[in-house]
Amino acid sequence: MKLTIPSTVGLVSTSLLLGSLIGNVLAHPSPDPKANWVRKARGRKNFSRDPYAHTGATACVDSNATKITAPYKNVWDELDDTEAAAVVQWLFRQPELNLTVSDQAGNWDNAILLVELMRPNKTDVLNYIDHKGAAPPVYAHVVIDHRASVEPYYGDLLVGPLPVKNGTTKWEPLEYPYTRKTQGHVRNLDADDTLQQSWLYNLSASISDITLDLWNGTALGLDNDTLDIWGIDPLWQDDGRIVRWDTWWNYPVDEFDAETLLPLGLFVKSDVTGRDPSKWKLEGWLYNDIFYETTKEFRKAYFSPGFIKLGANVEGDWARTDQQGPVLPMDKNYPPLAVAPTGARYSVDVARKYVEWMDFSFYVGFSRDTGVSLYDIRYKGQRVLYELGLQEALAHYAGNDPVQSGTSYLDSYYGFGPYAFELLKGYDCPSYATYLNTSFYISETTHTHLNSLCLFEFDADFSMQRHSTSSYVSSTKNIYFTLRSVSTVGNYDYMFSYSFYMDGSISVEVRASGYIQSAYYANNGDYGYHIHDSLSGSMHDHVLNFKADFDILGLDNTIELVNVVPVSKSYPWSGGKTRNTMMLERSIVESENDSRFNFAANAATQVKVINMDQRNKYGEYRGYRILPSTGVSHLTVEESSNLVNAARWAGYDIQVTKQHDTEPRSAHAYNSQDVSNPPVNFDEFFNGENLTQTDLVLWLNLGMHHVPHTGDLPNTVFTTAHSGIQFFPTNYLLGDPSRETVSMVRINYDNGTVTEVDTFGQKDNSCAVDFTPAEIDLWSYHGDVVVRKFPYDPNDPYYETDSIV
Amino acid sequence: MKLTIPSTVGLVSTSLLLGSLIGNVLAHPSPDPKANWVRKARGRKNFSRDPYAHTGATACVDSNATKITAPYKNVWDELDDTEAAAVVQWLFRQPELNLTVSDQAGNWDNAILLVELMRPNKTDVLNYIDHKGAAPPVYAHVVIDHRASVEPYYGDLLVGPLPVKNGTTKWEPLEYPYTRKTQGHVRNLDADDTLQQSWLYNLSASISDITLDLWNGTALGLDNDTLDIWGIDPLWQDDGRIVRWDTWWNYPVDEFDAETLLPLGLFVKSDVTGRDPSKWKLEGWLYNDIFYETTKEFRKAYFSPGFIKLGANVEGDWARTDQQGPVLPMDKNYPPLAVAPTGARYSVDVARKYVEWMDFSFYVGFSRDTGVSLYDIRYKGQRVLYELGLQEALAHYAGNDPVQSGTSYLDSYYGFGPYAFELLKGYDCPSYATYLNTSFYISETTHTHLNSLCLFEFDADFSMQRHSTSSYVSSTKNIYFTLRSVSTVGNYDYMFSYSFYMDGSISVEVRASGYIQSAYYANNGDYGYHIHDSLSGSMHDHVLNFKADFDILGLDNTIELVNVVPVSKSYPWSGGKTRNTMMLERSIVESENDSRFNFAANAATQVKVINMDQRNKYGEYRGYRILPSTGVSHLTVEESSNLVNAARWAGYDIQVTKQHDTEPRSAHAYNSQDVSNPPVNFDEFFNGENLTQTDLVLWLNLGMHHVPHTGDLPNTVFTTAHSGIQFFPTNYLLGDPSRETVSMVRINYDNGTVTEVDTFGQKDNSCAVDFTPAEIDLWSYHGDVVVRKFPYDPNDPYYETDSIV
Repeated sequence: MKLTIPSTVGLVSTSLLLGSLIGNVLAHPSPDPKANWVRKARGRKNFSRDPYAHTGATACVDSNATKITAPYKNVWDELDDTEAAAVVQWLFRQPELNLTVSDQAGNWDNAILLVELMRPNKTDVLNYIDHKGAAPPVYAHVVIDHRASVEPYYGDLLVGPLPVKNGTTKWEPLEYPYTRKTQGHVRNLDADDTLQQSWLYNLSASISDITLDLWNGTALGLDNDTLDIWGIDPLWQDDGRIVRWDTWWNYPVDEFDAETLLPLGLFVKSDVTGRDPSKWKLEGWLYNDIFYETTKEFRKAYFSPGFIKLGANVEGDWARTDQQGPVLPMDKNYPPLAVAPTGARYSVDVARKYVEWMDFSFYVGFSRDTGVSLYDIRYKGQRVLYELGLQEALAHYAGNDPVQSGTSYLDSYYGFGPYAFELLKGYDCPSYATYLNTSFYISETTHTHLNSLCLFEFDADFSMQRHSTSSYVSSTKNIYFTLRSVSTVGNYDYMFSYSFYMDGSISVEVRASGYIQSAYYANNGDYGYHIHDSLSGSMHDHVLNFKADFDILGLDNTIELVNVVPVSKSYPWSGGKTRNTMMLERSIVESENDSRFNFAANAATQVKVINMDQRNKYGEYRGYRILPSTGVSHLTVEESSNLVNAARWAGYDIQVTKQHDTEPRSAHAYNSQDVSNPPVNFDEFFNGENLTQTDLVLWLNLGMHHVPHTGDLPNTVFTTAHSGIQFFPTNYLLGDPSRETVSMVRINYDNGTVTEVDTFGQKDNSCAVDFTPAEIDLWSYHGDVVVRKFPYDPNDPYYETDSIV
Repeated sequence: MKLTIPSTVGLVSTSLLLGSLIGNVLAHPSPDPKANWVRKARGRKNFSRDPYAHTGATACVDSNATKITAPYKNVWDELDDTEAAAVVQWLFRQPELNLTVSDQAGNWDNAILLVELMRPNKTDVLNYIDHKGAAPPVYAHVVIDHRASVEPYYGDLLVGPLPVKNGTTKWEPLEYPYTRKTQGHVRNLDADDTLQQSWLYNLSASISDITLDLWNGTALGLDNDTLDIWGIDPLWQDDGRIVRWDTWWNYPVDEFDAETLLPLGLFVKSDVTGRDPSKWKLEGWLYNDIFYETTKEFRKAYFSPGFIKLGANVEGDWARTDQQGPVLPMDKNYPPLAVAPTGARYSVDVARKYVEWMDFSFYVGFSRDTGVSLYDIRYKGQRVLYELGLQEALAHYAGNDPVQSGTSYLDSYYGFGPYAFELLKGYDCPSYATYLNTSFYISETTHTHLNSLCLFEFDADFSMQRHSTSSYVSSTKNIYFTLRSVSTVGNYDYMFSYSFYMDGSISVEVRASGYIQSAYYANNGDYGYHIHDSLSGSMHDHVLNFKADFDILGLDNTIELVNVVPVSKSYPWSGGKTRNTMMLERSIVESENDSRFNFAANAATQVKVINMDQRNKYGEYRGYRILPSTGVSHLTVEESSNLVNAARWAGYDIQVTKQHDTEPRSAHAYNSQDVSNPPVNFDEFFNGENLTQTDLVLWLNLGMHHVPHTGDLPNTVFTTAHSGIQFFPTNYLLGDPSRETVSMVRINYDNGTVTEVDTFGQKDNSCAVDFTPAEIDLWSYHGDVVVRKFPYDPNDPYYETDSIV
């Protein structure tokens, strides 16, 4: 059986591709200009014991979450070690791919960048889970780094079915999930990044007298460099040229990851079009808002009398996250914390990443590009969301200098999966949480993030319901359940929390911490606050796109808008007078022509996903409402010069499309490589299709306008850098479902005497809780476990964790 | 020494008032048509022990918060028992007031409605706390219920100075804090509410055959009534007439407070102008959207063939808050909860209601009208806010029927103080919280709400800061501190939370639970969802006005607006090309002509309170930013027919005025009594004054558009009915102050082995925590303690709690 390719997209025979694959190709082992996966030597350490011993997969789950067997297999899960190794081995046996092992690959070898699960089409999955059909066949999504030609490209392939069998397993170009139909090819602007790095070191060497004079340092690619050079992302891609702007940064003087706080204010422009470095061109220098077309011109100005030399940004305590200053009163005493006196009250199938809490259940998927996603989220046995997960995260900067102005990170390029590090127990999640592992593929290895997902129940600091009178008081605890992961994509730590509540609501929250990417202060007052000696808090918009594929009581759904509007109106009883009051206006979103919009001013519009064929007994449509729970925002910049068509999803709060298996994701990891003609142009999802009573996908943007101020030093704090949205049942059930919980009390009293206390059967555990379990052994932190896939060596795992910078 | 009356307002001699006070007056003991304070007999029970024994004032505080002595006395605190009793006794000795004790007062006697602290002018307080002057003299704010004339009125008086001394203590009309200058007189539309109630019973009796036929019940003012009658608030006040609309409600069949869910759909209009009931007029009936001008006409129609009779709303499990339905998996196990293993890490001066937590300190005030307020909120020893507290809460309904359409509760009329009931430990606040008492005056008694304020520290479910790399991970706990009270004003429970964070931020949150006030469903589809048999979830706007009197590094402050705006712009380095990007636009709010505005679309505008004379070392203005943390909204209705000028504060998100001692509050408890010409018309605060570098007050609206759906049955839940705002330091300090805490960790690791764990000296308490203390003795709930003031009987306190039916 084959994975179904949607009929609108023809199967491409493998022979079509062969031509472009054959040639004198040299693969570059890394697609990632920011990462040090490859460039820096990695130490390895053999395990003295089972590397998974401390993970949720074994001991922890035994001690807390109830074991359960998922009702069906997780068709969105990562490939396991054996599957991934088999695919890698099979790929190396395909001569037409002409692959070289990453570690051994020279500059013009082909290499494998990615081997992961190809997520099955919703159509096929529903046949399996809703209609008792067979499980969809398993395919791998493979990305090959083709550096063979003068026009190198990333190649998306589909490989399967799995398990690998010679004769039945095939590869084909992967094209159907992308709006651009180029057989899964995306041009690769990173092919020569080591050469470009050398180019930059040479440029820096050409002015090393100046860097020494200004900053007492050099950036030459040597171990004792005290300066770094890097710049814009995406590269300028106008007029068929590829142009980069770079700038110098001080390295921190210690282990703190503060480099993005240390810009130095000199910028250089290079045209790096093509693969022949001899044709690359220096195109100018910028210092203190003055542009110099040549090095000579810049040098001449620099050494002229009156040239203004500006200060440097140098690391110090201001850039360090450790405790500083006098300790506050009583702060050395251990603060309050949450405990779970009866252990976990939820169930997990660890192998299948399936979770049940109260009346909710869901599966967890994990991918390189976007990290964690949730699938088949059910409430009271009924699917509410088929899929809920991050699609892409944009950090769009602006500034008076070309590097800040030109920076618009599309973070799935780096990937949320590779940087979803081990969580810190008792800090990132409560100490009693259940922790699960996740894994991702890189360079013929699978890395496993130990304890990188946490699951926990929590008692909010406020109740969910309460009412008091002179004779009784009734209150219900607000117990909720959260799944969380944190991805540190370079300087920023994104915390993703998916929470479930007793009232049937579901929330998604993103918070940002870590180091800001800052700007050099000079001439930048219109783009940020002056926050340290020579530092500007570079203004930027975070916009994070989430896919929320709702299925409210079936696939046929509609978006209803309910507006609260002021009206002047007379009534049969108003004596002929007009009254100034308000009323509701209800409408539906008819088609993709009017399905891109923002949350209304003054929160006047309710946005609901309803099923018009499912009215409740009072005639109201059953549905879920979409409501910002904390601030949300979309991109300020209009028609961004940096992004062109690469992030068309960023311009509105809410966008709704008809579900298509050919439109599984609003973005592609390599959209930054061809911003005018990216592999996924989200605008193309909108082609006027009718949206009434059909399968809908909501694309929701969370985000914040971030204008860093001194309080962002050394790190931005999660308390203010947050965005969230909640989905809650509206006319969905006949009453508030939180009435089902026994975490409630009613107390009757009369003139000072309690006459009744009803706790509804919740066990009154008076056992002592040892505080010790809440005290995590912080020495058990490990980081990632790596298993080599080629050669496949499952018995020699080792620890290794890599981050960006 | 006298309390300073601002110079713009002349002192009124007492003799001016005497004329209006003398007459054949009969006081009505209650101002409150909703309350059962007086109408229903109250049981009394003598204490067998100290009624305060279980309160924060004694045992609890000893066991948790550190005792501390406030730096100066709390000049905003309630009057103590002795002071209040002395004022009451003194008032009864003033013959010109001709007072009668409330319990004994007939319909035309004068009575005392309120005796509480008159909050001193900011000017006088700053002289005391900032300039080492004398403490302001203590005055009482007294409200007299003058029912003496055909035009009865509420009279605000100032009585003092206290303590009472014959000869020096005087009373005078209180006028200066109100925009309307009528010697503190406000007309009283409640003077004859018992007569009006009788009027309604008579109307009901005139159609009792119909009420029996429709609902099998009657409303006759008898003990066995199964129906209630009540209606709009405020009353219609057009054209010099006072008109009421009322409707019938089923009583619940048990103890649950569900009456507001049981409207019956028949409406009656009465003109009740004047004090002579013989001149009151029935003006019509409304049933099923048909208006009948007379009872005869209505009766004729009702008994005609084809008259459509609609169903009733009858209480059942759907309206009861108790646990219902099958118990969810594992829900009988005790859920997670917060504990405080080392006890309270904050300090309280219980007598002075003064609190210190980490680098924050504040005083707590409490009043009848608005409940809790915070004063002199300091951060790092520097005042940030002089005053922060609720001013008024509006619940503006709309509907196709005259009762919903005519309802716009201004809840300070009922008061947040009298209904700030005892908090439920472990539900409303964590079990380990510190609880304080509050008190209010009514009918010659002082009622003390035991444990009605809670103070607690909490560890959020997410960290405040974190950053991870391949070699270390750093994280800081998000420990915050909250003061909370809950007021149940009739059907709704408002939870007010003031929280303080380690990053220097302060938040205000309001959440709503309790029973909705619902509408009869017929013809109401444009005003609410049909949510039960004959029930509509009546749409309404909650708007809650807060005063935030900021003092950022002194009194001279300015509002700065920083906009994030899209721009097309070329740069020296852009090769002549225009780039689509964004930038900041900074402006200030110059005067009260442009100081009423809303939060911008797409959150594009930062609103900050800055001090332009206090730049930081980098030249940025130091200040606090105002940011919605959850949804906020202002009133939808424009030029409300119900409110006219009574809630002019409701129309914008933010409004800024120059501080004046004569404008202490945006509303008055009796604004509803004269909506066209209310005692405080907030519009009059805006008279074009310059707002740059002067003492500013921000009037902030929290709120929500509430369109109740089935999930609001039986109670609205706090999880979705919430609104919040946060204030956070922006360029205020030179870095993030949360770096000071030791509730953080840094872990260094290398290839799977932790090389360093630094917890910065926080004590690693491994002691066992007994779970038992987290288990509250729910049988210790008491309700309010009452002390009689006239005669003053401090040794005979008794328990009594009253709520609005």
